[in-house]
Amino acid sequence: MDEFEIIKSYFQKLTKNNPSALKLNDDVFFEKKNKIVLSVDTYNEGIHYLNFKKPELIIKKIIRSSISDLICKGVKPKYFLISGSGNKKHFNRKNLNLFSKSINAEQKKFNIMLSGGDTTKSKISSFTVVSLGFSKSIIKRNNVKINDDIYVTGNLGDSYIGLNILKKKININKKLNNYFVKKYFLPDLPFIMHKYLNKFANSSIDISDGLIADLNKLVNIQKVGYNLYLDKIPISKNLNTYITKNYMNIKNYISKGDDYQILFTSSKKNRNYIKKLSKRINIKITIIGNTTGQFKERNIVNYKKYLKSLNYKGYSHKF
Amino acid sequence: MDEFEIIKSYFQKLTKNNPSALKLNDDVFFEKKNKIVLSVDTYNEGIHYLNFKKPELIIKKIIRSSISDLICKGVKPKYFLISGSGNKKHFNRKNLNLFSKSINAEQKKFNIMLSGGDTTKSKISSFTVVSLGFSKSIIKRNNVKINDDIYVTGNLGDSYIGLNILKKKININKKLNNYFVKKYFLPDLPFIMHKYLNKFANSSIDISDGLIADLNKLVNIQKVGYNLYLDKIPISKNLNTYITKNYMNIKNYISKGDDYQILFTSSKKNRNYIKKLSKRINIKITIIGNTTGQFKERNIVNYKKYLKSLNYKGYSHKF
Repeated sequence: MDEFEIIKSYFQKLTKNNPSALKLNDDVFFEKKNKIVLSVDTYNEGIHYLNFKKPELIIKKIIRSSISDLICKGVKPKYFLISGSGNKKHFNRKNLNLFSKSINAEQKKFNIMLSGGDTTKSKISSFTVVSLGFSKSIIKRNNVKINDDIYVTGNLGDSYIGLNILKKKININKKLNNYFVKKYFLPDLPFIMHKYLNKFANSSIDISDGLIADLNKLVNIQKVGYNLYLDKIPISKNLNTYITKNYMNIKNYISKGDDYQILFTSSKKNRNYIKKLSKRINIKITIIGNTTGQFKERNIVNYKKYLKSLNYKGYSHKF
Repeated sequence: MDEFEIIKSYFQKLTKNNPSALKLNDDVFFEKKNKIVLSVDTYNEGIHYLNFKKPELIIKKIIRSSISDLICKGVKPKYFLISGSGNKKHFNRKNLNLFSKSINAEQKKFNIMLSGGDTTKSKISSFTVVSLGFSKSIIKRNNVKINDDIYVTGNLGDSYIGLNILKKKININKKLNNYFVKKYFLPDLPFIMHKYLNKFANSSIDISDGLIADLNKLVNIQKVGYNLYLDKIPISKNLNTYITKNYMNIKNYISKGDDYQILFTSSKKNRNYIKKLSKRINIKITIIGNTTGQFKERNIVNYKKYLKSLNYKGYSHKF
């Protein structure tokens, strides 16, 4: 079973009288009456981060990953709480000082406020982050319209190269190593998008588990299809250089997750507005496909060759 | 360092512009503007619960422990979210089914609503619970007045006997074993107290780490003293029987934590009101001491013999 089967089979039914739970289908809780939007995410050592080296970067990545859940729903994050578990090696004075400085840097960068949490003992380290914001509406999943454009912000794939460098599976030159590792730990959140998304997005999700995996989650209870154009997927110059030099296939890099970019759909009539906005706010926003009325048509299109989406599955917590 | 030194030294300063964080001194976040009260607590296998036997009881205990944070502040919990981490042995179909049933039973019992969460892989199991309620005010810690009565709801100590039975350090007869183990897993929350506390309580906390430890947390930044009368501390008939039969000293049982009763202080003028309320709502509420103006006078009084409070320290996460 993966996490989605678990939610669907065992827990969704418990929320039938609670519309704010959104059938556990979105990554947030949204209570319309009080305009509350809340996310809870847990990050475990050995699963979400390789090890406890660079705690000052781990904590930043975790905070960004958490507020990303709100940003992609068109909601400005305001407060966050962190519950940290670990032993005395994890929570020694040096690391606590690093945590404190990193948390402070992130709260200033994103104008969010540390608001509480918990500190508990555990053999392996783990963090749970709660993000809280206020909004009278949110952009939900499973609200794609037929013939919507599919958009993505920023670039994909850099983070995955960074992960592989940390795993010592890839080694390039020092400059590129640093570039990709930085992208892994410090994703460029399209933060300001929270302000604009509700003007044009029909449905949205952030890319945490991989482009294809998250696109499928975006429409997991909708009977719609899509075409995704592999050659349209935005990548950085550095990733392009790496792929070209090493004769690598792009498809292995653009759907592995940890990108924390926003994947959304929008009516074709908004193309001009979105193009102008992209320039104005200096955030890359790229059309990478379109939705279709044919449920069975979920294609990854690569230079007119159809490939099965199965090859591109992202990360899923399997039990 | 213990968890309180960590918070004080490294994280409190990050919240200086955020009054809703309550200086990280209470176990909740309280945003007055939107009337939000929120708690986050993490429970780790091997620390907060011994092992993964009886998952159907562990999850109930965890939910109760979480909403206890709100109840003791005079706030009705409304929503809760659970982030569970574990492997496929923890999250097999049998256990998931047990979780689902237990969560459903708790949400009906306390009229609270499952509202989301997260499901992630981890070598050891762990749960983080977020509880959310709404209130225009809360009863804070560190608001004790001099010459307040100190009260506690329910009985203390049963849970600790239950824990020792599970640890095979104690073995009584089957009936008593069952009684104490049940009290360990299923604390009798004084739920309805959330309605009344704000009428008379100056300051309050729930007892999770031990009576004395939590009393000291209640006044940790106040320069007040207290007298606590050991022989006034309410215990169950079963605990009394156990202690008497085994010539045990009560002081070893009443301050070990996991009681999830409310410890609060109130002006002497409210005695009559509280006595009547206790009868009406059928919840034991006992005066166990009083606060004093002498900071250095923090005494546990036992039949007129003074004992050092040091002997009674409860649980603290040390790193």
